[in-house]
Amino acid sequence: MTATLVIGPYSDIDVAGLKSAFDPFFLDKPADISGLEQTIQSQITAVAFKGHASFDGGLMDMLPNLKLIANYGVGYDAINITHANERGIKVTNTPDVLNDDVADIAVGMLLMQVREMSQASEWARSGRWKNQGEYRLNRKFSGGRVGIVGLGRIGREIANRLASFKMDIHYFARTSKPTPDWTYHDNPVALAKAVDYLVVALVGGPDTTKFVSREVIAALNPNAIIVNISRGSTIDEEAMLEALEAGKIGGAALDVFQNEPNIDPRFYDLHNVVIQPHQGSGTVETRADMAALQRDNIHAFVRGEKLVTPVN
Amino acid sequence: MTATLVIGPYSDIDVAGLKSAFDPFFLDKPADISGLEQTIQSQITAVAFKGHASFDGGLMDMLPNLKLIANYGVGYDAINITHANERGIKVTNTPDVLNDDVADIAVGMLLMQVREMSQASEWARSGRWKNQGEYRLNRKFSGGRVGIVGLGRIGREIANRLASFKMDIHYFARTSKPTPDWTYHDNPVALAKAVDYLVVALVGGPDTTKFVSREVIAALNPNAIIVNISRGSTIDEEAMLEALEAGKIGGAALDVFQNEPNIDPRFYDLHNVVIQPHQGSGTVETRADMAALQRDNIHAFVRGEKLVTPVN
Repeated sequence: MTATLVIGPYSDIDVAGLKSAFDPFFLDKPADISGLEQTIQSQITAVAFKGHASFDGGLMDMLPNLKLIANYGVGYDAINITHANERGIKVTNTPDVLNDDVADIAVGMLLMQVREMSQASEWARSGRWKNQGEYRLNRKFSGGRVGIVGLGRIGREIANRLASFKMDIHYFARTSKPTPDWTYHDNPVALAKAVDYLVVALVGGPDTTKFVSREVIAALNPNAIIVNISRGSTIDEEAMLEALEAGKIGGAALDVFQNEPNIDPRFYDLHNVVIQPHQGSGTVETRADMAALQRDNIHAFVRGEKLVTPVN
Repeated sequence: MTATLVIGPYSDIDVAGLKSAFDPFFLDKPADISGLEQTIQSQITAVAFKGHASFDGGLMDMLPNLKLIANYGVGYDAINITHANERGIKVTNTPDVLNDDVADIAVGMLLMQVREMSQASEWARSGRWKNQGEYRLNRKFSGGRVGIVGLGRIGREIANRLASFKMDIHYFARTSKPTPDWTYHDNPVALAKAVDYLVVALVGGPDTTKFVSREVIAALNPNAIIVNISRGSTIDEEAMLEALEAGKIGGAALDVFQNEPNIDPRFYDLHNVVIQPHQGSGTVETRADMAALQRDNIHAFVRGEKLVTPVN
């Protein structure tokens, strides 16, 4: 007898979809695997995984017959992929369906930051517009120079949008890519020096940890804005916080953080930071697409068909 | 002897620029003209005007030798243009230099509204992300259907930006215009029925008062969002408020209001409305460009040269 195990915080609709498809077992987080009866542990051949809690090798090995981890989300950095490879466990993710939403949040956060839209809203709603006059002038958005760190599918969606704002597009990637008249930089420090806005769109995981390093942050100009829609791990957060607190950069717009949702409380005191609660892909439409793609991968596995979106 | 009169709320930089260029008289608002000595009134040949307070015919006639009103801003609906025409007074404005900024605010407000970015920010900053979990799912932005009411220079800038978000672009204008694959509607009710987002980019003034009428608002779908970056006068604000309060439309994103900055306090109670304090063109760069263009028009008048950006 085989069974599917669902791990993570799912919406009611997603839970209903998974129940009717697989009649699975449910757990809140990977660490809870250790609490399953051993007979159940050995029935599990597929896991539907969601969330950012670590799914490490030790937990995988409590499921001796595990063959598939179907991740909900494009980033699967919570899963120990090296161990999965050693065990011959296939991993799938949900790419592409969320690109638009994440790019939208990146552009929205940058607009909010540069045009001080939260502060201006508060100015109006608090009655200061009426009593003290116009909100202070801020900074022109269109026509700026933007640097995309990581020109994958999401990075390209962001660049395409910002190009319509007449921005001068620069990017870093491991190799130069076919693009419109965008400027390639072969290292992130050179990219940081060239731009007003630095948008981080890297894949998460050990290869990109603190890729936006203290040195990269120091290379930014004093008005530069950092945008992060990738993972909190991709930026040296301590170096960024110090630069923000010291006014060495202009601000930040962040959807992701180290240790989220227990983010560093120093962020709360920074008024030059737009904070979003990792809601890049958080729309009804896209989460439904992600859930469907996760289920499609499990269906394919159960039927012995080719996985839809394998990552290993 | 001739003189220039500066009317309106200018920044310190603008005041300095006007002083060094024209050594002018300064007033806060058009109504203050009546307080000027008659000898000064008759010296005034040019007015540098800024603001939304009414500059009516009676006030113009207190300046018997007035030949030019150089408006700061693209919209000159505060100026009685019919009376200026009768008197042979030329009026100039500051078009184009502010198109990008106003379009940026339109897109930024719509993103904030649809992705609930203010509410999500508050969710994170108040600690609810940490204590209560993810912010609720909201609505996909990219790929929506948007209707632009008034496809002038600013309307087109907005449409170009939203096209990069893969939106299906519809528009109303008096006549069909050369565009990419955008859909023309010959009346605003038909436009309202066809779209998810209605962006008002009309010229202000008597010809467009309440152009977005109760009937147009009633034609919107229950999730539709109204965006206004034109003038408060272009929308039947009472009908819009009623629709917002009754949940007959999804929300609004407004940079302009009737009677601003004394806006209707009912707006403050509406959480499905993004409010901005008429800051569309409010960047340091663009306001400097607007001030320079206003001065260039006065310089041209003083030298007897062709006006740079006349409107009549």
